[in-house]
Amino acid sequence: MSTTKENHERQSDEVQLPNSRKIYVEKEGAPGLLRVPFREITLSATRRNDHTLEENSPVRVYDTSGPWGDPSATPDVRDGLPALRREWITARGDVEEYQGRAVKPEDDGYLTAGAAEYSKNRNKGRLETFPALRRAPLRAHAGRCVTQMHYARRGIITTEMEFVALRENMGREMALHAINEHSKSDRSSLFHQHAGESFGAEIPSYVTPEFVRDEVARGRAIIPANVNHPEAEPMIIGRNFLVKINANIGNSAVASSIEEEVEKMRWSTKWGADTVMDLSTGKNIHATREWILRNSPVPIGTVPIYQALEKVGGKAEELTWEIYRDTLIEQAEQGVDYFTIHAGVRLPYIPMTARRTTGIVSRGGSIMAKWCLAHHAESFLYTRFRDICEIMAAYDVSFSLGDGLRPGSIADANDEAQFAELDTLGELTKIAWEQDCQVMIEGPGHVPMHLIKENMDKQLAICHDAPFYTLGPLTTDIAPGYDHITSAIGAAMIGWFGTAMLCYVTPKEHLGLPNKKDVKDGVITYKLAAHAADLAKGHPGAQLRDNALSKARFEFRWEDQFNLALDPEVAREYHDETLPQEGAKLAHFCSMCGPHFCSMKITQEVREYAAQKELDEQAALETGMKEKAAEFVASGAKIYQGELPEGVRHEH
Amino acid sequence: MSTTKENHERQSDEVQLPNSRKIYVEKEGAPGLLRVPFREITLSATRRNDHTLEENSPVRVYDTSGPWGDPSATPDVRDGLPALRREWITARGDVEEYQGRAVKPEDDGYLTAGAAEYSKNRNKGRLETFPALRRAPLRAHAGRCVTQMHYARRGIITTEMEFVALRENMGREMALHAINEHSKSDRSSLFHQHAGESFGAEIPSYVTPEFVRDEVARGRAIIPANVNHPEAEPMIIGRNFLVKINANIGNSAVASSIEEEVEKMRWSTKWGADTVMDLSTGKNIHATREWILRNSPVPIGTVPIYQALEKVGGKAEELTWEIYRDTLIEQAEQGVDYFTIHAGVRLPYIPMTARRTTGIVSRGGSIMAKWCLAHHAESFLYTRFRDICEIMAAYDVSFSLGDGLRPGSIADANDEAQFAELDTLGELTKIAWEQDCQVMIEGPGHVPMHLIKENMDKQLAICHDAPFYTLGPLTTDIAPGYDHITSAIGAAMIGWFGTAMLCYVTPKEHLGLPNKKDVKDGVITYKLAAHAADLAKGHPGAQLRDNALSKARFEFRWEDQFNLALDPEVAREYHDETLPQEGAKLAHFCSMCGPHFCSMKITQEVREYAAQKELDEQAALETGMKEKAAEFVASGAKIYQGELPEGVRHEH
Repeated sequence: MSTTKENHERQSDEVQLPNSRKIYVEKEGAPGLLRVPFREITLSATRRNDHTLEENSPVRVYDTSGPWGDPSATPDVRDGLPALRREWITARGDVEEYQGRAVKPEDDGYLTAGAAEYSKNRNKGRLETFPALRRAPLRAHAGRCVTQMHYARRGIITTEMEFVALRENMGREMALHAINEHSKSDRSSLFHQHAGESFGAEIPSYVTPEFVRDEVARGRAIIPANVNHPEAEPMIIGRNFLVKINANIGNSAVASSIEEEVEKMRWSTKWGADTVMDLSTGKNIHATREWILRNSPVPIGTVPIYQALEKVGGKAEELTWEIYRDTLIEQAEQGVDYFTIHAGVRLPYIPMTARRTTGIVSRGGSIMAKWCLAHHAESFLYTRFRDICEIMAAYDVSFSLGDGLRPGSIADANDEAQFAELDTLGELTKIAWEQDCQVMIEGPGHVPMHLIKENMDKQLAICHDAPFYTLGPLTTDIAPGYDHITSAIGAAMIGWFGTAMLCYVTPKEHLGLPNKKDVKDGVITYKLAAHAADLAKGHPGAQLRDNALSKARFEFRWEDQFNLALDPEVAREYHDETLPQEGAKLAHFCSMCGPHFCSMKITQEVREYAAQKELDEQAALETGMKEKAAEFVASGAKIYQGELPEGVRHEH
Repeated sequence: MSTTKENHERQSDEVQLPNSRKIYVEKEGAPGLLRVPFREITLSATRRNDHTLEENSPVRVYDTSGPWGDPSATPDVRDGLPALRREWITARGDVEEYQGRAVKPEDDGYLTAGAAEYSKNRNKGRLETFPALRRAPLRAHAGRCVTQMHYARRGIITTEMEFVALRENMGREMALHAINEHSKSDRSSLFHQHAGESFGAEIPSYVTPEFVRDEVARGRAIIPANVNHPEAEPMIIGRNFLVKINANIGNSAVASSIEEEVEKMRWSTKWGADTVMDLSTGKNIHATREWILRNSPVPIGTVPIYQALEKVGGKAEELTWEIYRDTLIEQAEQGVDYFTIHAGVRLPYIPMTARRTTGIVSRGGSIMAKWCLAHHAESFLYTRFRDICEIMAAYDVSFSLGDGLRPGSIADANDEAQFAELDTLGELTKIAWEQDCQVMIEGPGHVPMHLIKENMDKQLAICHDAPFYTLGPLTTDIAPGYDHITSAIGAAMIGWFGTAMLCYVTPKEHLGLPNKKDVKDGVITYKLAAHAADLAKGHPGAQLRDNALSKARFEFRWEDQFNLALDPEVAREYHDETLPQEGAKLAHFCSMCGPHFCSMKITQEVREYAAQKELDEQAALETGMKEKAAEFVASGAKIYQGELPEGVRHEH
């Protein structure tokens, strides 16, 4: 077990969230090998009634912002991020540089608009090509395999695994120790944690590199880490780790600036997206992806069939294995970390969707359904699956086996078509694992609460414990405009039951394109859902942030309460709408109770009284209450004198 | 079992939501006795591919807006609403009119500001008194009882019970019949409904007045209906009925206009609040309540200790049973339908909160804790509980037994203090029932997901199946600013498990005063959570609205999709941000897939093909697919030709 060393960097409000600083934890005994990033939130001291101060330890939180969130780093969009993993990859000696595939006009969707037209206006509306020197792509030497699963199965702990182990522990060895030893029954302890119900997950109290290796070897977790995306900071997706979230982004209607395209990814990861899917279509699809990959500190996923479809002018029936294969290689060379592949949408399953309320709602699924219908043939994604595996293994692109037949309405939940496809995904998981490919499984969709657990249970059984990656699920169809919420209910539950990663849903789902506010609302909503799942699973240390925030709330440390929130900006803004004065943030009352009477204050006084008497606490409270009563009355029984707008209270 | 007759009224966009009309269902054979309101959403026809039209039946939804949402009614704030229930109450012959308690200056909080000051400036900052003729209050004749429970236990089906039965059925006998007969396996049927998991609830397929009576008699449901609030439309709160939601409102910091105070209540009920709690404090508390009650079509709840505290200048230790009793009578005469009474906060439980992270967070609970500490005496709410019951029985005010010791943080969930109080609430439920008082039980608070069910199970066991009324619960503490969402997760789950009413939480919880947008966000969020619970319980007919909306989505009836949404305005606005043209609302593609390829369209074509062939559908689909394939290719395999901004897709 490694202990940690920390490097503290300067703080900057422009780059980081308030009162936060980026810290890096290194592996003991191996300085410089890896630096695992965290955000540390600095707290103010607790002022006791006797006016002494008690320090509050900073709270360390998982940080997905990469160098963009580090004031000491100076990343430039046009240079891309440093190639963090490059040396780790080459040092293993299994990859070769080679002359990559040449970029073609149709890679950026310009064939769709007409080749002739393209020649005439080749630069009109085009996104600038990423300017930094293009590295020659890497791939496995012939006959070698470079996947994390391959290494794991051979007993090799990669640097990526070491990184992940430190990252999952949040560097909180002391906190974890305290949780185990002292805090089971004392709820006022910062380290109190409920036992949790994990439904058979095997979450260790401390994550070792060996545990990570073992989970990856078993296929219970994946580390999406294409050898051509060395900029990404390793992260893990698995039921026995922190629940992760994905944010989807897509290119704009018109060619926008590079900064705008990169900004969407940066914005998502600033607020906590663990991976980002680039669902761009149409023009500039290749160039956009290059900009995103070169600047992304998190794994990037795509749905390659979207680009393949553009290459055949949007005509699904003209798709071929060759075009699809070429697209996989194109994107693997760029560094995409996982591909959604709808290989479970088989010809015989399509009629099963005919009696549904909403048919096929997955775009990738419906493209393949159309191809199957047009050719009356089995999907080439299915028939060529072993060939696909070969490509995935050569670059370590992880599979995200798509649920093309997921339900698009409450009515269609858990139906024959959905579960037929799941059976096939289980079969394909085994095949991928034969070639040491990493696999996760995508899940629904729209599911009423009481049918959610069946999805999780079946997925675990049928897909041999491969990680589950679900969209929501939405628990009702009747709230368009609020589907980040209808789906967060399902997401929190399925995360609790064992789903490893939750794909976010924004308020614009079913209605339109998410804007920046929608993306943030989606990310924060899913962060809170994922965290609620971690709490319910009893993930060690998960409750620490809740405890710290609640302690701050109890002690009227308003600034600390804001800063510990998932969204400090909104928390502060909402507070200031009612109590804009700076002084209000020092007030010893909360907006629930108002100044006349503060419920939290009483408990504090009772507690201090007991401590002063140095008595057994419970006995002290009971015997001392009479004395306390007299004191209360004598002191005028006023807890706080102050001003607060009336009506600032809404609990009862 | 009654069947129904309907009266249709004119429609007005100003008063009602789009494409909606207010309808009233009457009891067959008794026209004019009662008129149960619904909102009926009119839908456009489905255009089949052969250009024939197929009508879509209007969808009837529960309507809490009262006469304010009826274009044919002409309510005036200064007159108040018609006294709908007045004759029902007097006809039972158990009430007497009497000279009510005289309104005192301190009722409006003017004692707090100093009696002398009050005399000098008696009209400064005062809210105008409700101008309509004040009715003499009603109360039970000496020795009589007028509660719905009292009648129910004597086998009497009141008109309120008849009203509730029609209301709960949503007048959807035909739909309910169809659900039972035909739609279990056909997911494309509008009447398809999943079986549900109700955890032992006994939800009938059809609600009869006798069922309502029996549930009220057993104490498993309450109909909050003070004899002095005849303006309210009867509604029921119980585990075997639709899950309800409550919205909290409070007066503003400065005396605002009457319209503003009434508007908060109207706004909440427009969006679906089933009851409203008036948590006003400070000035004008009596006058505000009068305006709200006289204009409210839903039951009103209060926390009388708030007003009692104002009467003693905010000094909890100066509270007396006499002042509290006087306040109960004052509010009962005005017509408050349920009182939150924190009678379970007993002296011996207060020390149990000393080791908590956040102590006592209920305002009412902490007021009583302070009183107990100051006097070192048992709470007068507990010692005088039978006296309180007597008052409640005389006016039919329902108990909402408050959870003054609910957890205010994840750490404090399900602790000794919380469950000690719950034991007392169970004991008090029995006492209240001895006097035929209606009772519901308030619940937490902040609870991680895996500890939610224990709350429900214990409440049912300890409180003898009395209805549960919970605030959230919030499933994590780390998202202030988003606590409508952290709590909607818990609310949907506990609603599924059996909670009868969910008290909303707005985004401003813990931070400040909710504004109009926050109130709406809270109400819509809780409506969707309650509906998700109804779906999961398998509440008969609940899925109809989901099915209708999903069918509209599948058929690209955009307007119908908006109008069937809980919030048609936001759904339309979000759509129009991306596709502002009117034509886009007729587009045969959705924002998920874009125009190149529409997944939903394929399923429709396959389905129609089968219908044309008049074959067994499944066989048709399989044998016909080859033919269909040829047709696809021949037709150019284009599903839709049109324009849509690129990137309007975010499922994958």
